[in-house]
Amino acid sequence: MEIRDRILQTAETLFRKFGIRSVTMDDIASELGISKKTIYQNFEDKDSIVHEIARHNMMCDMEESERIYKESANPIEQVFREASLLRKQASTINPAVFYDLKKYHPKTWQFFLEYNKVNFLEIVKKNLREGIEQGFYRADINIEILARLRMEEVEFAFNRDVFPPERFNQTDVHTTFIDHFLRGIMSQKGLEFYEKCKQDNEPEHINF
Amino acid sequence: MEIRDRILQTAETLFRKFGIRSVTMDDIASELGISKKTIYQNFEDKDSIVHEIARHNMMCDMEESERIYKESANPIEQVFREASLLRKQASTINPAVFYDLKKYHPKTWQFFLEYNKVNFLEIVKKNLREGIEQGFYRADINIEILARLRMEEVEFAFNRDVFPPERFNQTDVHTTFIDHFLRGIMSQKGLEFYEKCKQDNEPEHINF
Repeated sequence: MEIRDRILQTAETLFRKFGIRSVTMDDIASELGISKKTIYQNFEDKDSIVHEIARHNMMCDMEESERIYKESANPIEQVFREASLLRKQASTINPAVFYDLKKYHPKTWQFFLEYNKVNFLEIVKKNLREGIEQGFYRADINIEILARLRMEEVEFAFNRDVFPPERFNQTDVHTTFIDHFLRGIMSQKGLEFYEKCKQDNEPEHINF
Repeated sequence: MEIRDRILQTAETLFRKFGIRSVTMDDIASELGISKKTIYQNFEDKDSIVHEIARHNMMCDMEESERIYKESANPIEQVFREASLLRKQASTINPAVFYDLKKYHPKTWQFFLEYNKVNFLEIVKKNLREGIEQGFYRADINIEILARLRMEEVEFAFNRDVFPPERFNQTDVHTTFIDHFLRGIMSQKGLEFYEKCKQDNEPEHINF
């Protein structure tokens, strides 16, 4: 693996574990057993590393979402699996990452928000449209407004001022939001399918 | 009426109509037919006027909410009536007010957020608890998490970047959020009552 990729990979591991703010260039260099100079030969500053990692992660997430989209039998299964992905991601990222991004890397945070606005919004809207077409969601839901609410919920769940980690389990917050969001849009048919899925997975509380 | 109260009343009328930013001290003085000096004898600056009006409005809203709370036959009626109040308020306030508050009067905006956090959060939690007790809401909803979501929705509905007034009708946004929020928490009993209420009001699309 090229040194540039090794730096990115190691930085990402450290960021995920400890947040961005508390990981220094020295930490990254020492973890890799290289000099700080080598890092600076490859990256202008920590901000560039953060941005490159974020950009790469967003691309991967989007590919993963599209894969889930294609492989899911119906819109509710798609949400289940997206939720599972989100839960898996959330559990492997120190929540400080989002806090630090917003506060100390506003350019990357803005990019993240813009990227989500364009791509994730389209995925949610497509899910809502297909859910209506297939009769899992009510026909009278307002797609434009509710897709934006769902996007806000994803970001809001990471708000540490509202959901401080010492009081709230992040997975609970995500799970509660998704369960509530789905119940708010489902038709009777959708609800029956949903309850059945949850019941089937009950022993391991899996996939949700 | 004392001059101080007349200034507050006139300023409030102008703010509600045109937003805060675009109303100057000159506008207020000229509307009242008094000199700017008279205003400054009563208020240090525009910020003080804004803060006093906001404080007074919050107190009134809270009293109104408590009155609604006491007069409602059940938790769903309470939400209906709160929604109606919110819709009425939203329709008489230029949305720029919230934008301007956040951007140009951060102290008042913080006060508004804190006040809501303490008071409105308690009202929502009480509503959720009673809804569960009376069987209108599902027994397994997460009160702490969903009450915070509901609060966020109220603020989010006023986000002009996400819901620009030229594309979204503010009442639609509020109505969609409340409808979706309720459907997400209601039991079968609650849903039946809710549908009946909506049907009864259908001809005038009233109370919601």
